[in-house]
Amino acid sequence: MTIKTPLCETLGIEYPIILGGMMGISDANLTSAVSNGGGLGTLSSATFGVDGTREQLQLLSEQTNRPYSVNLPLFHPMVPNLLDLLPEFGVRIVTTSAGNPAKYTEQLKSMGIYVMHVVSSVKTALKAFDAGVDAIIAEGSDSGGKVAKDEVPIISLLPAVTERVDVPVIAAGGFATGRGLLGALAMGAQGIQMGTRFLAADESRAHENWKQVLVNAGDSATAIALKNSSPTRLIKNQFFAEMDALDEPGKGPMDYMSVQKKGNESIPDDVDGSRGNYIAGTGSGLITNIKPAGDIVREILQEAEQSMAQLQSYL
Amino acid sequence: MTIKTPLCETLGIEYPIILGGMMGISDANLTSAVSNGGGLGTLSSATFGVDGTREQLQLLSEQTNRPYSVNLPLFHPMVPNLLDLLPEFGVRIVTTSAGNPAKYTEQLKSMGIYVMHVVSSVKTALKAFDAGVDAIIAEGSDSGGKVAKDEVPIISLLPAVTERVDVPVIAAGGFATGRGLLGALAMGAQGIQMGTRFLAADESRAHENWKQVLVNAGDSATAIALKNSSPTRLIKNQFFAEMDALDEPGKGPMDYMSVQKKGNESIPDDVDGSRGNYIAGTGSGLITNIKPAGDIVREILQEAEQSMAQLQSYL
Repeated sequence: MTIKTPLCETLGIEYPIILGGMMGISDANLTSAVSNGGGLGTLSSATFGVDGTREQLQLLSEQTNRPYSVNLPLFHPMVPNLLDLLPEFGVRIVTTSAGNPAKYTEQLKSMGIYVMHVVSSVKTALKAFDAGVDAIIAEGSDSGGKVAKDEVPIISLLPAVTERVDVPVIAAGGFATGRGLLGALAMGAQGIQMGTRFLAADESRAHENWKQVLVNAGDSATAIALKNSSPTRLIKNQFFAEMDALDEPGKGPMDYMSVQKKGNESIPDDVDGSRGNYIAGTGSGLITNIKPAGDIVREILQEAEQSMAQLQSYL
Repeated sequence: MTIKTPLCETLGIEYPIILGGMMGISDANLTSAVSNGGGLGTLSSATFGVDGTREQLQLLSEQTNRPYSVNLPLFHPMVPNLLDLLPEFGVRIVTTSAGNPAKYTEQLKSMGIYVMHVVSSVKTALKAFDAGVDAIIAEGSDSGGKVAKDEVPIISLLPAVTERVDVPVIAAGGFATGRGLLGALAMGAQGIQMGTRFLAADESRAHENWKQVLVNAGDSATAIALKNSSPTRLIKNQFFAEMDALDEPGKGPMDYMSVQKKGNESIPDDVDGSRGNYIAGTGSGLITNIKPAGDIVREILQEAEQSMAQLQSYL
């Protein structure tokens, strides 16, 4: 038995598992590790800027012959310059997020690029569908990092989105295991996108302390900070409380950059996991080990296949 | 094709769909409607007290020959008196919640009763398992009404619980459709428990205005109020804001009874849905109609079976 959705054929990948374009984390190394493992890696262009992204794409061209995606933050003024890079490196898949999908979708599609857009509600899903995107990534409030102010968990978001749009839907937020993958496919998704699980991969550039925090995390280790201004899911620790105390309506992400920088700089010396800025989704409670990204991909598939056998026994 | 889990055989029900014991809502009418529809109804004893529960059990004995469950709030001093009622009415299934499962599980089992216990974390699931319960209801923070302070959404809670306990697990929180049911089974559950969906059933005693609020609710209509004292998920409206403004660490559920009473009393005249206390889970965004509970059960099964056919096409 092997599980393969139509999206796998379309993207040219073996398994319906996608790496999220994590700010500061999803570089060429991790992207190629996931793609070479049979999933779809995603390069975070926002992490590297235009010149840095060119370097990363060059690296990627050396590291893999498999498909990968490039994440474009739509609100960012550098997007037009990033668009110029795509044909140069033969990029065929793009993940757009953080902005209006109507802005670049037509241009990307005219370049022959497959466009996946990240949404967090039915409303934004319908907007993306109307903008003509090829696939929709429905990301629940269970996910790590920035989440939408209107928190919609994936358990209710996914069935609502898959019912209303006529393009493949990828589920994101809280997934880390094969049971979750099969659950997402059962609810109508054609794949899952995971950030936090791959953050704890061998090839991830995240500090070992961050990875260890994820391995040690229980099911209720994360929460959403900055609810009134810039909602962000991360590990609950002393840093969380310090940053959250600064939360004020009217503030934006930029207002927390200095405290976040402090939290990031604390990580290398943070032996007890109390002072670091550890972005993480609710799926961190499901992470029990650090291993190669390719092994993560294959083990999730195997577990999903075992779960499928169990599910079929209910018929 | 028909979907049937081992739990269905154990409980003697046709479909793996359980009515949650909702305070103020889950009476004999709704319980028997769900049980007669092939699911498992659950009577909320906390709503009725000892004498009222006796009346409801009498009604139930007239309304259905099918199995149903009785919800016992373990912390409540009336539990010993409720226990006396169970053999009198031949109750075979009990759902325990809101307290230590070690307290009554042995006694209930010695009475030949099947004990299901509601948990909200891996820790409490393991505690219930150790106490010897027959099944565990894993309820995510997506659910309506009281939720645990440590919010764990069902997408991450369910795979963690099903992996760690060796008894049937029922998933609760955010479910309202057949896709959700299949998703839960795919993640290792043997059934789902739903409150909000049945709150909008014809047989529910909830006011028509409340049901209409659920039908009109979008995916981001609910949020958790009273996060610092008595976390409760309900519809975001003017009442939500008024109650939430009273949130203070150190307060308990009793401190909000008068404001909640006001919210409940506003419902009959609340034509625009702004002033009522509308308890609801995130699944309310998936509710599009009010219909008989039996139809809800059967339609969810049909939809799950269609989703299963789609899932099997991925093999």
